Amino acid sequence: MAREILLNAFNMNCVGHIHHGLWTHPRDRSTDFNQLSYWTDLAQLLERGLFDGLFIADILGVYDVYQNGIDLPLQEAIQLPVNDPLLLVSAMAGVTRNLGFGVTANLSYEAPYTFARRLSTLDHLTGGRVGWNIVTGYLDSAAKAMGRPRQVEHDRRYDQADEYLQVLYKLLEGSWQDDAVLADRERRVYAQPGKVHKVRHHGEFYQVEGYHLSQPSPQRTPLLFQAGSSPRGLRFAGEHAECVFISGNDHAAVHAQVDKVRASAVAAGRAAGAIKVFMGIAVIVAPSEAEARDKHAEYLRYASPEAGIAHFSSSTGIDLAAFGLDEPIQPHKTNAIESVVKTFSGWTKRRLLEQHALGGRYPLVVGSPEQVAEQLITWIDATGLDGFNLTRIVTPESYADFIDLVIPELQRRGRYKTAYADGALRHKLFGQGPRLPSDHPGAAWRDPARLEHQHSITHELRGLSSNALSLL
Amino acid sequence: MAREILLNAFNMNCVGHIHHGLWTHPRDRSTDFNQLSYWTDLAQLLERGLFDGLFIADILGVYDVYQNGIDLPLQEAIQLPVNDPLLLVSAMAGVTRNLGFGVTANLSYEAPYTFARRLSTLDHLTGGRVGWNIVTGYLDSAAKAMGRPRQVEHDRRYDQADEYLQVLYKLLEGSWQDDAVLADRERRVYAQPGKVHKVRHHGEFYQVEGYHLSQPSPQRTPLLFQAGSSPRGLRFAGEHAECVFISGNDHAAVHAQVDKVRASAVAAGRAAGAIKVFMGIAVIVAPSEAEARDKHAEYLRYASPEAGIAHFSSSTGIDLAAFGLDEPIQPHKTNAIESVVKTFSGWTKRRLLEQHALGGRYPLVVGSPEQVAEQLITWIDATGLDGFNLTRIVTPESYADFIDLVIPELQRRGRYKTAYADGALRHKLFGQGPRLPSDHPGAAWRDPARLEHQHSITHELRGLSSNALSLL
Repeated sequence: MAREILLNAFNMNCVGHIHHGLWTHPRDRSTDFNQLSYWTDLAQLLERGLFDGLFIADILGVYDVYQNGIDLPLQEAIQLPVNDPLLLVSAMAGVTRNLGFGVTANLSYEAPYTFARRLSTLDHLTGGRVGWNIVTGYLDSAAKAMGRPRQVEHDRRYDQADEYLQVLYKLLEGSWQDDAVLADRERRVYAQPGKVHKVRHHGEFYQVEGYHLSQPSPQRTPLLFQAGSSPRGLRFAGEHAECVFISGNDHAAVHAQVDKVRASAVAAGRAAGAIKVFMGIAVIVAPSEAEARDKHAEYLRYASPEAGIAHFSSSTGIDLAAFGLDEPIQPHKTNAIESVVKTFSGWTKRRLLEQHALGGRYPLVVGSPEQVAEQLITWIDATGLDGFNLTRIVTPESYADFIDLVIPELQRRGRYKTAYADGALRHKLFGQGPRLPSDHPGAAWRDPARLEHQHSITHELRGLSSNALSLL
Repeated sequence: MAREILLNAFNMNCVGHIHHGLWTHPRDRSTDFNQLSYWTDLAQLLERGLFDGLFIADILGVYDVYQNGIDLPLQEAIQLPVNDPLLLVSAMAGVTRNLGFGVTANLSYEAPYTFARRLSTLDHLTGGRVGWNIVTGYLDSAAKAMGRPRQVEHDRRYDQADEYLQVLYKLLEGSWQDDAVLADRERRVYAQPGKVHKVRHHGEFYQVEGYHLSQPSPQRTPLLFQAGSSPRGLRFAGEHAECVFISGNDHAAVHAQVDKVRASAVAAGRAAGAIKVFMGIAVIVAPSEAEARDKHAEYLRYASPEAGIAHFSSSTGIDLAAFGLDEPIQPHKTNAIESVVKTFSGWTKRRLLEQHALGGRYPLVVGSPEQVAEQLITWIDATGLDGFNLTRIVTPESYADFIDLVIPELQRRGRYKTAYADGALRHKLFGQGPRLPSDHPGAAWRDPARLEHQHSITHELRGLSSNALSLL
């Protein structure tokens, strides 16, 4: 079948993202993240490597679980400071033509009406190259900073997210008809009255009465990324996501997770291939295996496994500072990323520190270009994955090495594109045009009649949703 | 005294901004506003003209007062569609070195914690070239789109804005000390524990407990623009604003308003010159007076006074469609821009239509380069104004004409800079460094001890504020 491998650069608007401690490496430039040129240089580099996208993670709040404070997060810059990701996009779009931008935004703290305009604005300015990584947050420190006593409970956050997406679909897909904008100077008609509809959403979490402020952008709804792996998160993915980001350590577990993601799409009435599945991965490559191993050893000298553990502590809600090295860890589920809890339940702190030798817990591939290409292809073929989110260990060196050494090897094997496809980000990935496909629930809101009857339909959907829930 | 005139381009991320109808002019490019190159080209043009800044207005909601709907706003693109202004900035910063960016954001609908991060991110990416135009909104259509029954009442919005600014100062000025970030690779200390402080704000409108997410940016607090002209708005300006944007039709009224703005600063314990005052103005210039008059006549053929009146209707909350041409207008104050209400109270619709001949109600200067320069200098010298927000009539032609013809004339008279000053936007305008001056209330929050004692101080300030209120 020899599918081409999809590839995002995994990054964040901060110093320490995944591989903590590597900011101290003499060739690492991540401390320049406040500079615009750091990002425009990166975007151009990635476009040279024909990367599908730059995936920019984000977090609101701080990692204050480990040692009950932020001393280590400050010292090692563990996703703190962290700047807004959306504000980077237009500058990078200006120096590239094809690179996609997958930006993370936490819907718990963004009003849908203004956020819809942000998405439309970026989709316009990039010519349809924007994706949104949908997250709902898990840190109490974020909730408190936003004036709330604590996070909303996990499954309720997804109920809220379902409704949030519905509001977005109404605004992005339904409010302006395709033929609303004429921009006809002779007739003096910029947009046609009667072709722009007011959204009247009265739901459990959101009340929105208004016209979408932006005219239709190339994709309307940006490409939808998501990373949930709990049963509730998977259901959400099946209903909404077009790209899902998973993590895992071995082929069997990842294969099982890929199958679950595809099954979730089918359960929601969509095609199994309607979701592209990406896995986070770290790569150290050099012209020869020996040089790659040397590079690995050199990187290890700058990494901070303890900083990795501090990050892990916030991901699981457990302060690992207090743990003995051989004490098994049994995370509870409150305020935790469930996929992390599930994967590492029962591990000792010693094993976790080994796993975080490079400061982060992603699978690591080390070797010559041939060896790396071989292993990546094996990951794809053994698991059903569509592609990877490639971490930065030393930046931009990790990406540059990959582009110079691994990409040509993948291309020789027919497993990586040799040129960008034309069109919007969604079209580049799925080949079916810039808009949501017809089997996606968001597409249904394009019908103006539906928006006009939205009150009754909203109630109907709520009924259906309760029924679906009782069947699970 | 021969002060140099300050100059912003007045613009908006939309088609029709002030001079409604001119989008139909064959040379007008405003219908390209969804394209990134429209903005990067504009930024480079303005920098060629040594403009101090690009001032980007914004509105949430729609102008649905006139004829009780949005038919005309759609047809004439009266600030609808309108995209997000902040997302334009990084692209324009990437193609310029000195131009400032004054972006409008409505604090009523932005949580201070996430908005503070947006401001810091932009200030970092632009190297300290960002200003924030503080608005609180006045449209019920925005409130309903944001899930609220109606706008908060006028003076209460300013009470809320006062507290909002206090939260921002705590985050932007107080949370990270100047020496917090070392980025010391050898010692493995990115930021120093103990130099980053948690904000604990428990106020009437906002509850914020958290560390600011961004490290100190060049200006920390961006340059603060504001445009309030009501007594309560002026009090707010006196306490917070560094640049105030006013409008007016004659020298005497503008002079009086400038004096009020300066008095408001003095009343708040700041220097009279702590606020730069800008007035909105429209200019049509050509090599000769006759050509300028021809251009004016040509522009008038494309303008829509009715669209201007529709805009005016939403500014005042009165549907002027129903008015007879000679009926005097007595706007009430609810859901209105008070400065507009005040200026036009008692006018007839006929007079308003004449005033909106070019689609908008700004003072218009038409003439040869010498005549325009002379009139602008007279405005400045007769009123005490510091500068202008120059509208676009036909874009980018209006700006290009001004740069090619008027700027050299002003320079010849020693009334316009011939090169940019170095440094951040605030420093370029005030010459006293990138940060808030010491007599600005935001500067007091730099003292870490104050942030530590913020609970009691918050209560003290509230007491003071109530006392001040009772004295007014």
